[in-house]
Amino acid sequence: MNIGMIEAAAARLKGHALRTPLLSSPFLDEIAGRRVLVKPECLQQTGSFKFRGGWSAVSALSPEARARGVIAYSSGNHAQGVAQAAREHGAPCVILMPADAPRVKIANTRALGAEVVLYDRATGDRDAIGAALAEDRGLTLIKPFDEPQVIAGQGTAGLEIAEQAAEAGVAGAEVLVPCGGGGLTSGIALALEAKAPGMRVRTVEPEGFDDARRSLASGRIERNARLSGSLCDAIVTPEPGRITFPILARLCGPGLAVTEDQALAAMAAAFARLHVVIEPGGAVALAAALYHPGEIAGDTVIVVASGGNVDAEVYRKALERFAP
Amino acid sequence: MNIGMIEAAAARLKGHALRTPLLSSPFLDEIAGRRVLVKPECLQQTGSFKFRGGWSAVSALSPEARARGVIAYSSGNHAQGVAQAAREHGAPCVILMPADAPRVKIANTRALGAEVVLYDRATGDRDAIGAALAEDRGLTLIKPFDEPQVIAGQGTAGLEIAEQAAEAGVAGAEVLVPCGGGGLTSGIALALEAKAPGMRVRTVEPEGFDDARRSLASGRIERNARLSGSLCDAIVTPEPGRITFPILARLCGPGLAVTEDQALAAMAAAFARLHVVIEPGGAVALAAALYHPGEIAGDTVIVVASGGNVDAEVYRKALERFAP
Repeated sequence: MNIGMIEAAAARLKGHALRTPLLSSPFLDEIAGRRVLVKPECLQQTGSFKFRGGWSAVSALSPEARARGVIAYSSGNHAQGVAQAAREHGAPCVILMPADAPRVKIANTRALGAEVVLYDRATGDRDAIGAALAEDRGLTLIKPFDEPQVIAGQGTAGLEIAEQAAEAGVAGAEVLVPCGGGGLTSGIALALEAKAPGMRVRTVEPEGFDDARRSLASGRIERNARLSGSLCDAIVTPEPGRITFPILARLCGPGLAVTEDQALAAMAAAFARLHVVIEPGGAVALAAALYHPGEIAGDTVIVVASGGNVDAEVYRKALERFAP
Repeated sequence: MNIGMIEAAAARLKGHALRTPLLSSPFLDEIAGRRVLVKPECLQQTGSFKFRGGWSAVSALSPEARARGVIAYSSGNHAQGVAQAAREHGAPCVILMPADAPRVKIANTRALGAEVVLYDRATGDRDAIGAALAEDRGLTLIKPFDEPQVIAGQGTAGLEIAEQAAEAGVAGAEVLVPCGGGGLTSGIALALEAKAPGMRVRTVEPEGFDDARRSLASGRIERNARLSGSLCDAIVTPEPGRITFPILARLCGPGLAVTEDQALAAMAAAFARLHVVIEPGGAVALAAALYHPGEIAGDTVIVVASGGNVDAEVYRKALERFAP
């Protein structure tokens, strides 16, 4: 993994992925006690940053491999990102999804032309199932995070943050990133190491699913005790990746964690103040900026809102409880 | 009014107003039966395009006039746009608002440092009240739409549409714009006349409040029979402006109108497919693109989502009834 791979991915994504803006609101600045700049990847194609990694990986395949097709496993956002990238490349696509994924994600993935195969998140081993399917059909497995071209694609968000922060006159800031397996966080950290060395990346997770925070504290990969039962399902993974964790350990500050209610309150704040729709897992970094100000340094914080694919019922409940 | 004024406004807005992106989703394309590109001005500073006009007008004042201050009257979005522009310029600001404006808009305007004066929309003459206040205190009245520097500011959205459509390979398209007094619509129409002559602008209004559509049909300014009772309050005005209407009549195609339920359904579609929050009045153009395809020409339609300041209760109801 190096900055050249991220820059090459950015060239392949140009004209296909959205260059998301940096948003701000004086109301959020007031809550956080510092300037808050939000990178809304919920506006990205397919509603999350995952389209960047999916496009990067599919576009990096040989024509022969693309023609045979790809397979991905994901709680939903990676699935949609890979499915749309595959469709735009004319590549067949199989998606292996947990049966308890939000219905909107399953339906959207099918509507994007992918064949969806469901498995039980508690009892099935998605890696084993995915590998077997890939071998059977000659598909290329596109892992959700522990895959260099995927990390390179996610890192393009970091290149944009470096450029947009410079335009906004910000040279130094902490950059808060919702962290599942660490693909987005490690890609952004590598991009900022090269392009904006005054920035420091921080992982943010839901409490109870804070494998990255504990791994960063202990210096070795720690696992989550459980994998279901969180509204922040999009960023719940068993543990940080073998490729991503060493990057996180080298470049990130201490990990942060927020409660589920704080994530829901951040969704409501983004509704009222930024007018973007963020899903619970995608809102944890904004929640840390708004509700954990004492754990963050500096007069400006940059926050990634990583996705917006949320069931309407969950969203309505967040507004009912927390909208200002 | 000419393109030079719009380009000068764009230079003054640079670094202050957000250059909103063009969003798209294959799901919306499928509903509309053509490619749909959405300009989400709900992401703009203060949650609507009105910040463009407010900034343009305040920044065009002499230093002496700015120091005395400004006054504006508005159902809310113009108020917030002028208030934040005034605050960033260090100018005092008085806002005259109807007493039945959404509470979030009144609260936000006060929080932006403006002095808010309320009046009764049914019985009060806001023009007369505003003019008297302006004279008493030496304030400059910034009208919501019939004011050249305001139109020039709104027109900067049209300059961006011309550039962004060209980048997306779109030379010809109808451009659907939510229309109240016609400031945004006329500004965009002037910008596109100069920069993208293959585009044609169409006004979109709520049914029952379609003064622009009837005025375009008759060739003279027609009034609305009533001014309250619409969820699309942000774009309900008595009649098109004296400056804006001749521009609309010269450059726009026939006006469109949508039902309130269609506006609410478009809000729910934008929630699920674009992950942006649009207010009812701001969603009428997207509603026309999605639910009136037979009244629109061409294989691509460009839609302005003009604002996102909506009460949480209204938004929850829209999702409850119409979210996919």
